[in-house]
Amino acid sequence: MAEQDPLGVAGARGGRAAREYDLDRTTAFSDGVFAIAVTLVALTIEVPTVSEANESQLPDEISKIAPQVLCYLLTFLVLGRFWLLHHRLFGDLDRLDGRLSVLNLAYLAFVGIFPFTAELLSDYGDQPIAVALYAVGVGLVSLIGTAMTSYALGRGLIGEGERRDEAERGRHAGIWLAGVFLVSAGIAFISPSVAIATWVILVVARGGTHAVSTVTK
Amino acid sequence: MAEQDPLGVAGARGGRAAREYDLDRTTAFSDGVFAIAVTLVALTIEVPTVSEANESQLPDEISKIAPQVLCYLLTFLVLGRFWLLHHRLFGDLDRLDGRLSVLNLAYLAFVGIFPFTAELLSDYGDQPIAVALYAVGVGLVSLIGTAMTSYALGRGLIGEGERRDEAERGRHAGIWLAGVFLVSAGIAFISPSVAIATWVILVVARGGTHAVSTVTK
Amino acid sequence: MAEQDPLGVAGARGGRAAREYDLDRTTAFSDGVFAIAVTLVALTIEVPTVSEANESQLPDEISKIAPQVLCYLLTFLVLGRFWLLHHRLFGDLDRLDGRLSVLNLAYLAFVGIFPFTAELLSDYGDQPIAVALYAVGVGLVSLIGTAMTSYALGRGLIGEGERRDEAERGRHAGIWLAGVFLVSAGIAFISPSVAIATWVILVVARGGTHAVSTVTK
Amino acid sequence: MAEQDPLGVAGARGGRAAREYDLDRTTAFSDGVFAIAVTLVALTIEVPTVSEANESQLPDEISKIAPQVLCYLLTFLVLGRFWLLHHRLFGDLDRLDGRLSVLNLAYLAFVGIFPFTAELLSDYGDQPIAVALYAVGVGLVSLIGTAMTSYALGRGLIGEGERRDEAERGRHAGIWLAGVFLVSAGIAFISPSVAIATWVILVVARGGTHAVSTVTK
Repeated sequence: MAEQDPLGVAGARGGRAAREYDLDRTTAFSDGVFAIAVTLVALTIEVPTVSEANESQLPDEISKIAPQVLCYLLTFLVLGRFWLLHHRLFGDLDRLDGRLSVLNLAYLAFVGIFPFTAELLSDYGDQPIAVALYAVGVGLVSLIGTAMTSYALGRGLIGEGERRDEAERGRHAGIWLAGVFLVSAGIAFISPSVAIATWVILVVARGGTHAVSTVTK
Repeated sequence: MAEQDPLGVAGARGGRAAREYDLDRTTAFSDGVFAIAVTLVALTIEVPTVSEANESQLPDEISKIAPQVLCYLLTFLVLGRFWLLHHRLFGDLDRLDGRLSVLNLAYLAFVGIFPFTAELLSDYGDQPIAVALYAVGVGLVSLIGTAMTSYALGRGLIGEGERRDEAERGRHAGIWLAGVFLVSAGIAFISPSVAIATWVILVVARGGTHAVSTVTK
Repeated sequence: MAEQDPLGVAGARGGRAAREYDLDRTTAFSDGVFAIAVTLVALTIEVPTVSEANESQLPDEISKIAPQVLCYLLTFLVLGRFWLLHHRLFGDLDRLDGRLSVLNLAYLAFVGIFPFTAELLSDYGDQPIAVALYAVGVGLVSLIGTAMTSYALGRGLIGEGERRDEAERGRHAGIWLAGVFLVSAGIAFISPSVAIATWVILVVARGGTHAVSTVTK
Repeated sequence: MAEQDPLGVAGARGGRAAREYDLDRTTAFSDGVFAIAVTLVALTIEVPTVSEANESQLPDEISKIAPQVLCYLLTFLVLGRFWLLHHRLFGDLDRLDGRLSVLNLAYLAFVGIFPFTAELLSDYGDQPIAVALYAVGVGLVSLIGTAMTSYALGRGLIGEGERRDEAERGRHAGIWLAGVFLVSAGIAFISPSVAIATWVILVVARGGTHAVSTVTK
């Protein structure tokens, strides 16, 4: 273990049971934050208020919330994608150390902010600032995720060759996601709809095959 | 394993530990989404606002939210039923592959939308569009669940004979639920209350025995 | 197993792994509903709205929400108590069957309604109907919990002698809780504050020693 | 075991399986409350309401919520820190007893109150009462956590020497956190911003190295 933990942050308790406990509980906490964040996004879909006299207008009012529903589904897809990448990284880890725990908390803090950026996007989807902030949120999660993978690879927290290859692929997926979204944040100030189209074309469309063939296999 | 995974999507890491990790974590995330969605539905029951001068009217105001309480209990029953079916499917799986993970995320996205459709139903239970959208939500979850089971059976992700029979029964329950609710979405445009009665008679009433004798056994 | 499962509802898959899977996942889902319900109750504590000109009144406004904080703490204590009882029952189970799964869903449906009844109580703590509904909610959870324990004991789902004794004690605790709260629902219509005092004296005060010495040991 | 459990509260069931079940389920429930509380804090970040005619003011309106975002990130860091300390304490435990379960519920009740105190702080960050209540909340969680560790050490629930040293270090971290925040609650009545600066300097800044080198190793 000396080689894999040169700075000794793993502490005195290096037993297998302790390491599994740390991984299991961190995973459970992370899954909880993901599940809650993704489900709270659905609360951004607002039920329209229609007086009893005007209830015939309900279908029209409901059709106006289509963008909110699409924004929810997009966010579910984005967070689902991140969850799969996170899931894969943690599946490849042999153990956690303190710095990776702190990075993971930072990662989850930005996962937890999605109910806000998603509501902003669904309310103001035509405004550059709303589109850009959503994109920055996605980009930050990707970047921190990439930093986690790089750190884990650099510190030897991922032991075997095959797992390292997989983590390397996860890191590439993360860099690519970060790049697309951070660039799109700039594009949003020229045209919000082009920025959104970029996501749909490069991530959602590609995700259909990519998620299956590369990330989650 | 070659036979059960002809396209090789399960990836290079085919060890038992990796497969169990994938199943365990996906199950934990799914349970989280179910638990949160079902509990958030309770937030659709609104505490009435009564000024201090009129507090004697509180019992009347509370009796007006009976439909919201019934809608919550119905949704708990529906989501509880789906959870039991999902639980059973995942209990029968030998392993997950990428496509099934993606299908599962789509499934959970529609589970997560229930706090919205339930609020719509409890606020506008006499409007065709509200009843129909709730029914479509239930129907979509059933259909995706059925697709997951079919996929798992077709790809050999469910190994043993006995488990396959059980999954087959789960698939039938799913098709039946999807049929009832999608047909009732049409009925809602003729009579919302008949559509709701259909659910109660065919699902709730039958569920009492069905859930016990077939689905969850 | 024939003796313990005369009606055969446990199904064809009676292996230890399947039983543990059922118990583990039902426990995870139940813990999720408990954790979410209890945390959502905190949302009933409303941050007062004070205009910038009147910010010196903030301490006064905050002191007005003391009842909401007390209601949150009471509800945390009540749900924490139920969670301990539920935890103990599931720890004593050898296996689940379909009926117990359905009873557990009914139990959780009423656990999930606490954010509503707690908000009602904290907003209208001096109104009989609010106090009575809160008490009925607690009483129903107790009753269903007692029914679950009785069913599990009657069907032999709890195997060993020692565990049966413990479940028996849990059942007594449940009957006692149900009795106190259902009687207090009646008292609420005479005097809401006497009903609340009943809870505090018989449950909270007793809970300090009781929870430690009997229920949770 | 007689030595480690002089009052016999651990009950008749002292088997390893029962102890692991208790620890596992309490841990799962605790992780759930932490994950939900931390994610609900994000709901305190309010999406500004801007009429369509004034959408050009959206960037200005969004810049006004910077304090809410900072308050969310601070709270994530504080709760993340508590989660790491809790995680470590439970990793060191050999078993739970009734009193520790009750203490843990009290601990979680105050963790669950953060969505309220964080909203108060982000809405009224310049008011002594808001800053002081947030600090008292942090202080109470620290104190109860310290009491849990002291109790566990005193009752021999933490067996081995090395683990005891680690729990001792966790206790010191808790006392230190409690001291800083309770003192800062007093400072808030002189100057709210000095109180907040105290947290940032002593906790956040120090946390960067401390969390890594001491608490989480």
